[in-house]
Amino acid sequence: MNIQHILISGRLQEELKGLAERRKDKHFRFVPENETSEQDYAWADAFVGFKPTEGFSFARLQWVHATGAGVDAFLLGREWPNDVLLTRTTGAFGAKIGEYCLGHILSDLQRHSALVSDQASKRWAPAAAGMLQGQTVILFGTGTVGRGVAERLAAFGVRVIGISLSGRRVPGFTETGSLDSAVMLLPEAHWVINTLPLTDATYKLFDEKMFRHMKGAGFINVGRGASVDTRALLQALERQQLRCAILDVFEEEPLPKDSPLWEHPGIRITPHISAVTSPEEAEESLLRVFEHIDKGSFPLPQQVDTQRGY
Amino acid sequence: MNIQHILISGRLQEELKGLAERRKDKHFRFVPENETSEQDYAWADAFVGFKPTEGFSFARLQWVHATGAGVDAFLLGREWPNDVLLTRTTGAFGAKIGEYCLGHILSDLQRHSALVSDQASKRWAPAAAGMLQGQTVILFGTGTVGRGVAERLAAFGVRVIGISLSGRRVPGFTETGSLDSAVMLLPEAHWVINTLPLTDATYKLFDEKMFRHMKGAGFINVGRGASVDTRALLQALERQQLRCAILDVFEEEPLPKDSPLWEHPGIRITPHISAVTSPEEAEESLLRVFEHIDKGSFPLPQQVDTQRGY
Repeated sequence: MNIQHILISGRLQEELKGLAERRKDKHFRFVPENETSEQDYAWADAFVGFKPTEGFSFARLQWVHATGAGVDAFLLGREWPNDVLLTRTTGAFGAKIGEYCLGHILSDLQRHSALVSDQASKRWAPAAAGMLQGQTVILFGTGTVGRGVAERLAAFGVRVIGISLSGRRVPGFTETGSLDSAVMLLPEAHWVINTLPLTDATYKLFDEKMFRHMKGAGFINVGRGASVDTRALLQALERQQLRCAILDVFEEEPLPKDSPLWEHPGIRITPHISAVTSPEEAEESLLRVFEHIDKGSFPLPQQVDTQRGY
Repeated sequence: MNIQHILISGRLQEELKGLAERRKDKHFRFVPENETSEQDYAWADAFVGFKPTEGFSFARLQWVHATGAGVDAFLLGREWPNDVLLTRTTGAFGAKIGEYCLGHILSDLQRHSALVSDQASKRWAPAAAGMLQGQTVILFGTGTVGRGVAERLAAFGVRVIGISLSGRRVPGFTETGSLDSAVMLLPEAHWVINTLPLTDATYKLFDEKMFRHMKGAGFINVGRGASVDTRALLQALERQQLRCAILDVFEEEPLPKDSPLWEHPGIRITPHISAVTSPEEAEESLLRVFEHIDKGSFPLPQQVDTQRGY
């Protein structure tokens, strides 16, 4: 693999310009997202960005690096050539999403919203807060993000059951199980958290059938929006199968103004912020992939199995 | 020490009635808070409650047990007889107050309030959340509550500096120091947390002089309201020495309707809920003190040094 020409585009292309100094042996083009040209792709051996730009073309690409943790924007609906390497950013996503989930769960247990309302009406209404100890969380996805969340919750005595396709044991979780076993466990869940990548197998995984097993759980989606059937989610809230939903990811982002999710009292919307790639993370991650490619030690730790989709 | 007659009053007196079954060798009176009589005190060897009832009298009391963690309501402004034992409830207060602080700090780092406003106006405005790692917390009080808070924050990479009168090293904290050293450290604090008991030494400890050293810290009071000079607190918010304040305790509770704290945009009020004693905790704690008294192993672990005030 001989990478000489690297096209960097999308959010962070400006912040990544320091790379040219740190890898003087390579040639870089830094191009704003909507300005990449056919010529850029004809020139590039490698493409770096959060998602393919308009006019994305494999042309002579040997390597694509995603500046985020998810690669669905590259893989879904696209035939991926066997000889093109796909890598992704690995950073503090587990820690970030772990704190995101912990913050929202504590806010709910401690009734922050109700306390804000009480304060607004100068109402003094003491009620004991719920504690993390004794909560049961069903966590879909046992990769680095899922484990990051699991470790942060389990430390407080939360029972964290990790669900994956394989169902194999993974450290950091109290228990692990397959998708089939999840169905049996969902009635016990205080919280259901989705950290799964979007693939053909996880598209609309959270549908009417899935929600039907929940008995008043809170739902947190920090995976991908398209893994959830929005209509089924709204219905599950209506039917009190779900108690509330905290959504950071959506099928269309930004979430369209006419989406019914915005105004639902049981839904908290956050604008895809549970794990924002920092410029430092993007740069360090990319430099690490460079090193691994230089060493030729395949498969690289950051490499995506393009068949599996993550 | 011969305890036969035990007077139980105040919140939880109803819930504690099971004690009569568990200690049949003792005589109990369970009396609602505002109904204790002179006769009750003339009868009682021991008093159990959150605070003295109206008409509280040492009469023949040998032992007083506080159903909460704080004993200031018993000690302050009252000459405590040397021969009356004072004990307090020890329970999951460290865990409860730890989760309270963590919940509020995460909510602030993750800008929950701003996100709620954004949602109300259907505004999609991504901004990365702050992380716990790298935050500096100056925590006043290194007792069981302080340590409970410290351990829960330090686990996330927070630098937690414990401040006590003695300044001696205590496990669970990143560093410890005396009140004098606190002043030097306050400019670096992202958060200042008060868990101190109310004593003559901590009355109005957080005054204009103390706040003057802070440079935009958030302040959390889970100790006692009277440890804070309210006027100085409001001034510190005005002068941006404080960025925000999260107050669970107040000099007068319930907080009077005409308090300026209610409507201040930088202040979050919670109604003394950071560590509510559960009936189970109160009962178990009391039974443990019984056992220790039976064994005669003084000083008891739950015993208060009435000179020191905690």
